Amino acid sequence: MDTPRRSAAAFEIDARLEADSEHLAWLSLCELRLMNDSRWPWLILIPQRAGILEIHDLTPLDQTMLTFETNLVAESLKRITSCDKINTGALGNIVRQLHVHVIARTEGDSAWPGPVWGHGPREPYRREDLHQLAARVQAAL
Amino acid sequence: MDTPRRSAAAFEIDARLEADSEHLAWLSLCELRLMNDSRWPWLILIPQRAGILEIHDLTPLDQTMLTFETNLVAESLKRITSCDKINTGALGNIVRQLHVHVIARTEGDSAWPGPVWGHGPREPYRREDLHQLAARVQAAL
Repeated sequence: MDTPRRSAAAFEIDARLEADSEHLAWLSLCELRLMNDSRWPWLILIPQRAGILEIHDLTPLDQTMLTFETNLVAESLKRITSCDKINTGALGNIVRQLHVHVIARTEGDSAWPGPVWGHGPREPYRREDLHQLAARVQAAL
Repeated sequence: MDTPRRSAAAFEIDARLEADSEHLAWLSLCELRLMNDSRWPWLILIPQRAGILEIHDLTPLDQTMLTFETNLVAESLKRITSCDKINTGALGNIVRQLHVHVIARTEGDSAWPGPVWGHGPREPYRREDLHQLAARVQAAL
């Protein structure tokens, strides 16, 4: 289990988050990424702050920004997917760098009604499908 | 899957949330409850608003209050448990009424590093242990 350096080091995205997802946008606080797993429309917000493990470690202003950006993203994802429920979560048991998941869930999807985390292996998109969903999210924001 | 009434009806807590957890405190926005599952120290915040399913359905002020209260609770729980990681999540795939989980996770706990939701049956506390943890959380807030 790695722990990000608690220092004034420049912000960098954890290598595993980067490998499993695609860049979508830079918001004010967060980098927004699309998880490359075709089983669920799944976005990840990563606050661009070095050495942060927990939401409550952010400054109060950053906490408010994270709330605003998470809810903007959640509302957009619900609108474009017409899903039944948004799941949001910040776990960090494996990748400790703070990141917030926003996932579109539909009754009867492959993990329903359980959580998606740890549910079998990732199933990457075909490139064209990944880029099409990315474009829809970017347009909705 | 039940859907809370989207009306000006009085706020009531979902019967399943109530049955599985113990009242701890009324915060400004949320009722704070302790999940009666001895496998993990696990708190639940329920915004006292009728008919709300998603965090982004709350007013902006309520969203900010929820963030403040969630982070206050998370920081307190981390301090009193000395856990390795806080997991927070709002899923609602089974109980649709908006509720936010704040769970203290420790490396090697019974679901580690996976999520706790849907992980085997609940294991209720002995009453004295439940009341002792409740008192520690109340004192820490």
